[in-house]
Amino acid sequence: MSQKIVIIGGVAAGTSAAAKARRTNPDCEITLYTDDQDISYAGCGLPYFVGGGIAAKENLIARTAAEFQQEHITVNMMTRVEEIKPESCKLVVRDFVKSYEVGYDRLIIATGARPLKPNLPGVDLNGVFTLRSLQDSLRMKEYLAQKHPKTIAIVGGGYIGLEMAENFAQLGCQICIIEKSPHIIPNMDEDMAQILTEYLESKGIAIHTGEAVEGLIGEDCVKGVRTDRGELAADCVLLAIGVIPNSELASSIGLQLGTKNAIWVNSQMETSVEHIYAAGDCATTMHLISGKEVYIPLGTTANKQGKVAGANAAGGHAAFKGVLGTGIARVMEMEVSRTGLSENECKALELNFVSKRIKSHTAAGYAPESKEMYLKLIADQNSGRLLGGQIVGYAGSAKRIDTLAAAIHLGATMEQLTDMDLAYAPPFSPVWDPVLIALNQF
Amino acid sequence: MSQKIVIIGGVAAGTSAAAKARRTNPDCEITLYTDDQDISYAGCGLPYFVGGGIAAKENLIARTAAEFQQEHITVNMMTRVEEIKPESCKLVVRDFVKSYEVGYDRLIIATGARPLKPNLPGVDLNGVFTLRSLQDSLRMKEYLAQKHPKTIAIVGGGYIGLEMAENFAQLGCQICIIEKSPHIIPNMDEDMAQILTEYLESKGIAIHTGEAVEGLIGEDCVKGVRTDRGELAADCVLLAIGVIPNSELASSIGLQLGTKNAIWVNSQMETSVEHIYAAGDCATTMHLISGKEVYIPLGTTANKQGKVAGANAAGGHAAFKGVLGTGIARVMEMEVSRTGLSENECKALELNFVSKRIKSHTAAGYAPESKEMYLKLIADQNSGRLLGGQIVGYAGSAKRIDTLAAAIHLGATMEQLTDMDLAYAPPFSPVWDPVLIALNQF
Repeated sequence: MSQKIVIIGGVAAGTSAAAKARRTNPDCEITLYTDDQDISYAGCGLPYFVGGGIAAKENLIARTAAEFQQEHITVNMMTRVEEIKPESCKLVVRDFVKSYEVGYDRLIIATGARPLKPNLPGVDLNGVFTLRSLQDSLRMKEYLAQKHPKTIAIVGGGYIGLEMAENFAQLGCQICIIEKSPHIIPNMDEDMAQILTEYLESKGIAIHTGEAVEGLIGEDCVKGVRTDRGELAADCVLLAIGVIPNSELASSIGLQLGTKNAIWVNSQMETSVEHIYAAGDCATTMHLISGKEVYIPLGTTANKQGKVAGANAAGGHAAFKGVLGTGIARVMEMEVSRTGLSENECKALELNFVSKRIKSHTAAGYAPESKEMYLKLIADQNSGRLLGGQIVGYAGSAKRIDTLAAAIHLGATMEQLTDMDLAYAPPFSPVWDPVLIALNQF
Repeated sequence: MSQKIVIIGGVAAGTSAAAKARRTNPDCEITLYTDDQDISYAGCGLPYFVGGGIAAKENLIARTAAEFQQEHITVNMMTRVEEIKPESCKLVVRDFVKSYEVGYDRLIIATGARPLKPNLPGVDLNGVFTLRSLQDSLRMKEYLAQKHPKTIAIVGGGYIGLEMAENFAQLGCQICIIEKSPHIIPNMDEDMAQILTEYLESKGIAIHTGEAVEGLIGEDCVKGVRTDRGELAADCVLLAIGVIPNSELASSIGLQLGTKNAIWVNSQMETSVEHIYAAGDCATTMHLISGKEVYIPLGTTANKQGKVAGANAAGGHAAFKGVLGTGIARVMEMEVSRTGLSENECKALELNFVSKRIKSHTAAGYAPESKEMYLKLIADQNSGRLLGGQIVGYAGSAKRIDTLAAAIHLGATMEQLTDMDLAYAPPFSPVWDPVLIALNQF
């Protein structure tokens, strides 16, 4: 009898695992269960679907259930896995009509994460949304189309909050962003975040930092936000304050949890229980600089972890070493990105670091394409190793972070990097690329 | 008495050397001689100046003679250095009115290169141009404004030929590119060049490859190009077939020349004669993969070498390890870039290489920004080391080459690179960045 692989979860990690397991072993039986009514959708595309830049929900579907079926991967949608019985390698699943048991040889838990929804007065009012699933986005689109909200409050100034600011602005809404931390994009440093704050304010977006939401106001529909500083009018509210891993099912059978209650995995995506893997936004990962376990749920990591889990469940030998916390977002004309450690993260790790920030341009100063960009580097003062990079600037700025991510990934010291042969032509860069200018500050 | 540094040449390497020498030693005497009537201009910007994208010649001047003067750097323009007397550390220079001797403690030769102008019938006809100096571009602009040529033949399908194709097209000219090699962008592989060829042809640009120019036709003004295949009408011709180093002055006093008759230098930019440095397009450099001496004259390298020569001449200790031959160009909507070794270069070095090419997109497939890009990687089959990368694609494609340049610079193997944490958000990349997709083909 062929090996039976069961996967719980059907977005990034789950479908990556299924596809890779099939490529690794053409003969194994692969079954995927998801309690969602959609699978294999691009969660990161949802802000643009809400904003209208992506017209049809079908565009967001990477692969349909029928396409998985062609690869002999059985997809069960709207089917919830209620229990795992690791001692007998069985699952209890429930669909609309019945509950039943299925067996597995290898189980991959890719249950993802859910938006943090704080227990605040008014959090269940109409017009208060989180954005995580395709269904979330459809609900939000319907509300926007029916109510035409004029003022939208975005609670949370991270990547999703910022991307939604762009998309709400495109719909002609007045926007305010409320962030509890001292600055927006809390995983970047304050001086870099400040550049984006000033840009957003110049575009008429109100930025409230260091301000905590205490409740949502309204009777049926939301009418405003109450914070520790006062009240803000809003006829639509997006809560984008982070996610928590869906690890309860795993935890219920004693799987070891790690940081932030995510499912602990090693670099093979093995959990603490034999034959059970976990991957994606429900799982931990390793930070490549600190060597510490972290929970940084992102689509890229979910895909990579899913692939490794799928390969190993199907008898292959794969590993995922970890992350640098690389992130990127576009907000209107502005781009932000970061990789490695921020100053705050360096401080938390008690590293002896030095940082430098430069202002440069996305193209040769005389080129019409030339626009401002800021780049900050952080290096270890003892070892000379590059620890982190942050970029804020106009079009063409942010993807330069990959050059820094590659260098950090390879453990490079600043000295090794100062005369890298980076590409230059006037439409792309000053003759000294901003990355080189920054590297040469140390 | 303070140290006296004399620099011959006033474009990229010469002015970089002067500026760095001043930063290294605030007290030394720095004098720069150039036979050009302009200094410190952005040679790489000239195509866009001709095309009109850059309006004023002043925009191309990084620093004026007066600005150098403020740093106590004496600039002598239109002054030719006629002789070097290394045994007495003296130069014979000539300006409009007189010839005179000046002494030096340290001499930096940054005489650059000049365009190859083949000895062909008709090469001196009106309307036949090379593009190297600011004066070249002014002459060409004047001709274009007066004669309004309808058909322009570009001889040479390298970076400058391609950049000029974009700029001539902007002026509404009909363009043909004639390239002697089997394909355009000869330092890339044929399969990658072919993608650009098809694009350019779709835009109405005629591409003649494997075709050698035998003469230029016309009486006073050029009327056409005679090749080994026939005749092509052209009322303007740009010769962009490469450059040769201005090394005659150096060679006349016995300085060792290297490959392509460029001035041999070590990593400190020292020539074979004591107290004399060379830098920029007149000098050799080292290829970081092959370890072989190469002549790849580019603005980036000139700036880096100039900086090192200036530092060392002023008593500092700097070195420039070498290049990867990284190059980039935009041609209308298309971008091309390359780094490291091409297949032909691998063959010449008798390396046991393997190459893979992928087609991907500049953004998430569903994003409106998403456009085609092709990426090719070449790896050493024995060591697994990444040897080279090439990119052809729409806006946002080509600068990804820097990630590969960083990896090659650090000597990375493919295995080290496959799970790099590169940045992803829908406007910037598919969830697997094209760089990662290509790396995972091996």
